[in-house]
Amino acid sequence: MFEPPVQRLIDELSRLPGVGRKSAQRLAFHLLNVDEADTRRLAEAIIDLKEQTSVCKRCFNVTAGAECSICLDPRREPRHICVVERVQDIAVIERTREFAGRYHVLGGALSPIDGIGPSQLRIRELEDRIRHLQNGSAGSQNGEAIELIIATNPTIEGDTTAMYLARRLKPFGVTVTRPASGLPVGGDMDYADEITLGRALADRRTL
Amino acid sequence: MFEPPVQRLIDELSRLPGVGRKSAQRLAFHLLNVDEADTRRLAEAIIDLKEQTSVCKRCFNVTAGAECSICLDPRREPRHICVVERVQDIAVIERTREFAGRYHVLGGALSPIDGIGPSQLRIRELEDRIRHLQNGSAGSQNGEAIELIIATNPTIEGDTTAMYLARRLKPFGVTVTRPASGLPVGGDMDYADEITLGRALADRRTL
Repeated sequence: MFEPPVQRLIDELSRLPGVGRKSAQRLAFHLLNVDEADTRRLAEAIIDLKEQTSVCKRCFNVTAGAECSICLDPRREPRHICVVERVQDIAVIERTREFAGRYHVLGGALSPIDGIGPSQLRIRELEDRIRHLQNGSAGSQNGEAIELIIATNPTIEGDTTAMYLARRLKPFGVTVTRPASGLPVGGDMDYADEITLGRALADRRTL
Repeated sequence: MFEPPVQRLIDELSRLPGVGRKSAQRLAFHLLNVDEADTRRLAEAIIDLKEQTSVCKRCFNVTAGAECSICLDPRREPRHICVVERVQDIAVIERTREFAGRYHVLGGALSPIDGIGPSQLRIRELEDRIRHLQNGSAGSQNGEAIELIIATNPTIEGDTTAMYLARRLKPFGVTVTRPASGLPVGGDMDYADEITLGRALADRRTL
C-alpha cells in the first residue's frame, strides 16, 4: 500500500505493544513530517537504550554503569530492601517518596501456568544479599534490623510470590512485610470491588 | 527518575502524537526487554524513512524514487486526478479499490485561521499538471475528459478548499467532482448527526 520505507516503519511500529495498524500509520506519517534531526534523535535513543544500559549486578535495576544510582547512593539504607517484580515498578515506588532503602528486582512473579517457578526468579541472589548484609554487620554495624518489603503486584501471582518469599526467608530471621491492600485514596466506596473492600475491612486500622 | 538512557528514550517517545508519559514508559521498558536485533531494526526503519524517501515530483506523494509507484504505473489513468489533503489519504482511497487514476497531494486545506491560503497549497502545481495534460493530448490522445475528484476532508476547511478549487479551475474546462457525503454504510440512522443526515437527504438518489 505504502512505499517500502514507509511500510517497513509501519510494520516495525505495529510490533510495539498497544500500537495498532492505525496508530503505527499515524506515527509513521508524523515522523515523515518532522525534522530529520528529531527522527535521528529518536532512533539514536532507541539504539542507546541497548548500548548504554545494563543490569545492576546488585539489585537488577537498569543501569548505565555496573551498579544503579540507587545502589550507589550512600544515603539509602541498604538494610531496607523493597522487592519488586519488574524494573518499572521501582519508578512507581520512587515517586511516592516514602521509601529510602534499596530495591531488588525479582524479574517476575511465581506463575506455574506460565512455567515460572522460584528458580526463574532472582531469589537466590536476594538470599545472597541478605547473607552478605548479615555477615558484614557482625557487631560492627549500627545493628538496624533487615526489612524486606515484598512489593509484588496485588494479584494472585504477586501474593503467592510474597507468601513464598516470607516462608523461604524465615531462616534468616529478617522482617518481611507487604504494602497494605485497601481502598484507593480519593476513590469512591461505590466503585470498590468486593475483594478490595473485603481486604480493606479485614486490615482496618484503629484511629 | 530513570537512568539517563531510559529517560532519554521516554522523553523522545513522549513527543510522538498520542503517546503520553505512561505509554512512553511502557514502550521504553518493552524495548528494554526485546532483542537488540528488534530495536535496531526499528531504529533503522526510522532513519531509513528519512533517508530513503522523498516527495514525488508530480503528485507529491511519498516515494522511494523520483516519482511514486502510482505515477509510474501505466495502467492508471493520468486524466483522472484525485486531489487529497495529505499523503496518508491516498492509502485510504487506495483501499477502496474504486479509483484507478492518479493523485495530487495539496498539503493541507484552506484555513485562514491557521494562515493557510491558496499559495501554501500545491494548487499551482495542480494547474501545471492539467495544462500539461491538455497540451500533450492535442488531438493525439484518446480524448478522455480530465476529471478532478476533490477528496479533501468533509470539514469546513475541506469543503471550502473544494469550492475554491472548483471555481479556480473553471477556466480549464475540466470536470470537478467531490465524493458524496451521507450516511455511513452499515451505520444506524439514530446515530447520524443532523448535518450528515441533512446532506444525505439533500443528495438523495432515485432508485
